[in-house]
Amino acid sequence: MTELREDGFLGGRLRIRQPMRGYRAGADAVMLAAACPARAGESVLELGCGAGAAILCLGARVPGLRLAGLELQPAYAELAAQNATANGFALEVHQGDLAQMPTALRSRSFDHVIANPPYFTDGTLAPDAGRSRARHEETPLGLWIAAGLRRLQPGGWITLIQRADRLAVILSALGGAAGAITVLPVAAREGREAGRVIVLARKGARAPLRLLPPFVMHAKPLHSADEEDLTEAAQAVLRGGAALSLGVPNFR
Amino acid sequence: MTELREDGFLGGRLRIRQPMRGYRAGADAVMLAAACPARAGESVLELGCGAGAAILCLGARVPGLRLAGLELQPAYAELAAQNATANGFALEVHQGDLAQMPTALRSRSFDHVIANPPYFTDGTLAPDAGRSRARHEETPLGLWIAAGLRRLQPGGWITLIQRADRLAVILSALGGAAGAITVLPVAAREGREAGRVIVLARKGARAPLRLLPPFVMHAKPLHSADEEDLTEAAQAVLRGGAALSLGVPNFR
Repeated sequence: MTELREDGFLGGRLRIRQPMRGYRAGADAVMLAAACPARAGESVLELGCGAGAAILCLGARVPGLRLAGLELQPAYAELAAQNATANGFALEVHQGDLAQMPTALRSRSFDHVIANPPYFTDGTLAPDAGRSRARHEETPLGLWIAAGLRRLQPGGWITLIQRADRLAVILSALGGAAGAITVLPVAAREGREAGRVIVLARKGARAPLRLLPPFVMHAKPLHSADEEDLTEAAQAVLRGGAALSLGVPNFR
Repeated sequence: MTELREDGFLGGRLRIRQPMRGYRAGADAVMLAAACPARAGESVLELGCGAGAAILCLGARVPGLRLAGLELQPAYAELAAQNATANGFALEVHQGDLAQMPTALRSRSFDHVIANPPYFTDGTLAPDAGRSRARHEETPLGLWIAAGLRRLQPGGWITLIQRADRLAVILSALGGAAGAITVLPVAAREGREAGRVIVLARKGARAPLRLLPPFVMHAKPLHSADEEDLTEAAQAVLRGGAALSLGVPNFR
């Protein structure tokens, strides 16, 4: 693996070592952890845990969770285990492919599954974008969600963060198996299109979908280019480790 | 048909006679008409045009459209024709079932289709809500959208307004056949969940989905119970007949 650097999360409460080059978790991982409604004593599995930023942010926010992560790339899986130890968390890391779930996880079910599936950018798409997307992006995102739902107990919750333009694929993959779907648009600034969506859903539930008002990351007007233009709500989540409540749907 | 009353739309520019009892179009019809990106010279078909409020609001906003409506209930179809004449519009009204498209429409295609499919309320659902909804609600809403897509020319646009909790069904029904999907959440007040969604999509397009910032109907703080707490933007659409621009997606 390439050179590592150490990044602070939650105002420095968490120190996560990540590769200088390649995928590095950031605000999206913290937002994902903040949106998961896990409570003490419950179990959480992160699909594609990378170096462990999201699952460890969740562990830092909610004490008493049983934390597990699945990661395809051995170097990241090892980093996740090291980061957990360095920050004082018990994290069970499994190296393997979610499309061929490791035997150790196949027989188990969790109260919560969280995931921040890769964001394939346009640059990776072949000129025939529609077909290429179907092969390289839609099917895998649907697989992530299907694999997550299979690892949930009945009534368990799946929490995802993803590019907003993938909303149709997400809802389609959840359809049937999960309900009480709550969609939180995440916008860079007030009045802008959503760049991300956080989607929460409950396995086997039938409560109707809810489309929440957007969560706005940056305050306007923009005074400077530094990070201090985060909204108070975003600062509370990213720096203060606050929960991002998506509300409790009414079940029926 | 029961007793009729006359309702003003677009600040009184349009007078629409509707039954005192039974379904009466209101703000949703105006919002639907405002969101349709039709331009002079184009053709528009409304599925389920009722007494004609939405399609006539569109005709009033955009001169030079060729307007057609399909309505299942003969009494409403007749009212739509009368309302068109009374307001000086040429509206071609077809009485028939969109699930068994009338022959006169089956061979034709339009530049735009608009629809405000019925909002079945919880009260109409049997205790087994999931199955009942599937029978009474999901299949029909999907049929509305499929029927609308079939009546569109390649590159034609479908515009829908519907309960926000039906978003997954809408996106699923559009999937594959349409792209450039734009979702406009409509919220009663700022910071509230969306009660409605306006969804615009283009037949055969592949541009990514866009999730817009919400359109807010009522201003806060709430000073009184009358209608004058509409936001300026809502007043512009409902009273002033302004367009509700959902932006022009980038096609690819």
